[in-house]
Amino acid sequence: MSERELRVVTLLTDFGTADGYVAALKGVVATGAPRARVDDAGHDLPRGNVAHAAWALRRFWDRYPPGTVHVVVVDPGVGTSRRAVAVAAGGRFGVGPDNGVFTHVLTKAGSWKAVELEISPEASSTFHGRDVFAPAGARLAAGESLESLGRAVDDLMLLPEPTAAVGRGSVQTVDRFGNLVTDIPADALGTGTEVEIGGRRIPAARTYGDVTPGRLVALRGSDGTVEVAVRDGSAASALGVGVGASVRVL
Amino acid sequence: MSERELRVVTLLTDFGTADGYVAALKGVVATGAPRARVDDAGHDLPRGNVAHAAWALRRFWDRYPPGTVHVVVVDPGVGTSRRAVAVAAGGRFGVGPDNGVFTHVLTKAGSWKAVELEISPEASSTFHGRDVFAPAGARLAAGESLESLGRAVDDLMLLPEPTAAVGRGSVQTVDRFGNLVTDIPADALGTGTEVEIGGRRIPAARTYGDVTPGRLVALRGSDGTVEVAVRDGSAASALGVGVGASVRVL
Amino acid sequence: MSERELRVVTLLTDFGTADGYVAALKGVVATGAPRARVDDAGHDLPRGNVAHAAWALRRFWDRYPPGTVHVVVVDPGVGTSRRAVAVAAGGRFGVGPDNGVFTHVLTKAGSWKAVELEISPEASSTFHGRDVFAPAGARLAAGESLESLGRAVDDLMLLPEPTAAVGRGSVQTVDRFGNLVTDIPADALGTGTEVEIGGRRIPAARTYGDVTPGRLVALRGSDGTVEVAVRDGSAASALGVGVGASVRVL
Repeated sequence: MSERELRVVTLLTDFGTADGYVAALKGVVATGAPRARVDDAGHDLPRGNVAHAAWALRRFWDRYPPGTVHVVVVDPGVGTSRRAVAVAAGGRFGVGPDNGVFTHVLTKAGSWKAVELEISPEASSTFHGRDVFAPAGARLAAGESLESLGRAVDDLMLLPEPTAAVGRGSVQTVDRFGNLVTDIPADALGTGTEVEIGGRRIPAARTYGDVTPGRLVALRGSDGTVEVAVRDGSAASALGVGVGASVRVL
Repeated sequence: MSERELRVVTLLTDFGTADGYVAALKGVVATGAPRARVDDAGHDLPRGNVAHAAWALRRFWDRYPPGTVHVVVVDPGVGTSRRAVAVAAGGRFGVGPDNGVFTHVLTKAGSWKAVELEISPEASSTFHGRDVFAPAGARLAAGESLESLGRAVDDLMLLPEPTAAVGRGSVQTVDRFGNLVTDIPADALGTGTEVEIGGRRIPAARTYGDVTPGRLVALRGSDGTVEVAVRDGSAASALGVGVGASVRVL
Repeated sequence: MSERELRVVTLLTDFGTADGYVAALKGVVATGAPRARVDDAGHDLPRGNVAHAAWALRRFWDRYPPGTVHVVVVDPGVGTSRRAVAVAAGGRFGVGPDNGVFTHVLTKAGSWKAVELEISPEASSTFHGRDVFAPAGARLAAGESLESLGRAVDDLMLLPEPTAAVGRGSVQTVDRFGNLVTDIPADALGTGTEVEIGGRRIPAARTYGDVTPGRLVALRGSDGTVEVAVRDGSAASALGVGVGASVRVL
């Protein structure tokens, strides 16, 4: 079996799964790259929330093997002048709008390449997922090169860099459990450490089960950064804070 | 690799993904057609809403390659005298209840064939998805012919034909974003055109991003028909209308 | 093609599909067992509800072919002293926390084997799905033996056995439709039978469509046990009862 046959295409969208839109994407990939495997990375992302999608993508980008094609369609600017792009970073490919959704994976990889995808006049102006991104993803999965997809660009839109100082940072994303994920490296947390957020001091612990239900706790999160959680509850609700809130390790 | 090995089976249901029902279907297909690939087409369809399912199916039916088997289980009449059927149209197969769910894809294909599936006395009277439709889908995916599945029928139940006149029609479906999808061919919309719906006149635009957030807009929708939307909002809520509402292009 | 290439890995979690956590699991499996097929068994299970997950797993465990690996991550005790295990029963494998989630499938199979998985110090203490269970599932899918994954254990945690007497039992699970699924074998229901639950007497029928919308009905459920439902509605809401409620066939 050649490497080509191993290619996986993942799909990350905010389409939900009530209307058949996601299936249209999958059909396009199945037609264009019949030997590729298609994985749903998630379709219930908050609508149009690019920062949320960018962080979600960071969670699985390089858990997949090299050669994987990650198609991301969280695209509030569909049909406007925002570009459609494909990127290569850390051995994986990404396809999606040039709206910052690749920020974290590009930053982490350090070096990357990107091309601008041509948008055919026949493409629906409201559904580039089906008519631009899925076809490009299928071409990559079928073994075509990044370069063959369009002209090189090096000025991708990137979300503002977090300005974390040692032991300081902010909430980057809130997951559906209400866990507050920060950009402070997890190593900042030690035994007896506390975290200040939303005017409260939260003690560190090793895992949810180490505190009683309902209690706030600061953890070394699974994303490699400090996370604030409530056992069996929502830290976002308990603290009344969200993305952007300041966090400090004491 | 033979064509047979390429077969994809898609599953479109209103089962949700909280209970393991969908996984039972997938297991049946994996057992009956181990080389087929199974794609979730969506499991969060509005419960028992056949018209919604019929339109959703139209969105991806022929995006998939020829030979694909689309299993649809939106089946409020399960266990009653409604028939179980398999259809062939436009090179793809469909399996599901005879309740109108195949209306749009059959109409679009023009010609089609159908057979009535036998319902074994051992089949659960409340879960034909697992005991009737998935097994039939697996047999098609494994290369059996449509004819081998049952006796031919030509009187399938079809939903009422839309009675769209030139520039007139009605809302056919509402997606989870609140977009109102009509049956008026998209070509009816031109620059400067307006659409009348719910007592309001909505200006045409090319894409969501061409208007300010919260504004109503009429678009050439990705389904090939006129669509009324609100940028970053719900047109269904904004207008207080839904399926069946009259629409006119001015 | 050898049997090994046919292996399917299913994933049953309470992660939802908004954050990329499920995709991290899939990527780990794709990396560790590139030829395995990964099926979403469902990711919208009620958060931390082990009994619900155990019943859901029972619905599809042996619908899949022998050799299938079922990974279950409903794990409120992640990171505490609860063990991580892999089991073999009825020709299928299971991987997950030792919290009772395998109760029904082990009981049904009669005989089973289990091993305790080693938890690497590098594993995140809040995400064993990604760092412990998915890697073990990938190893099984790649053809490694159960025994190679850890030391044998025979004292798995099991949920309390239902104490159903003939014609008596209790609600075991409530699905997202509000159907009340009991542990009373379906054969207890005959024509003219009634079921007593929540102070009400519910008549038996063959399927939902045999009663008028909104009416309560007792059915031979698709899980092989007596089920109480409301046509086009929720029996749990209509009766105000849930898991644990007593049920008696009259």
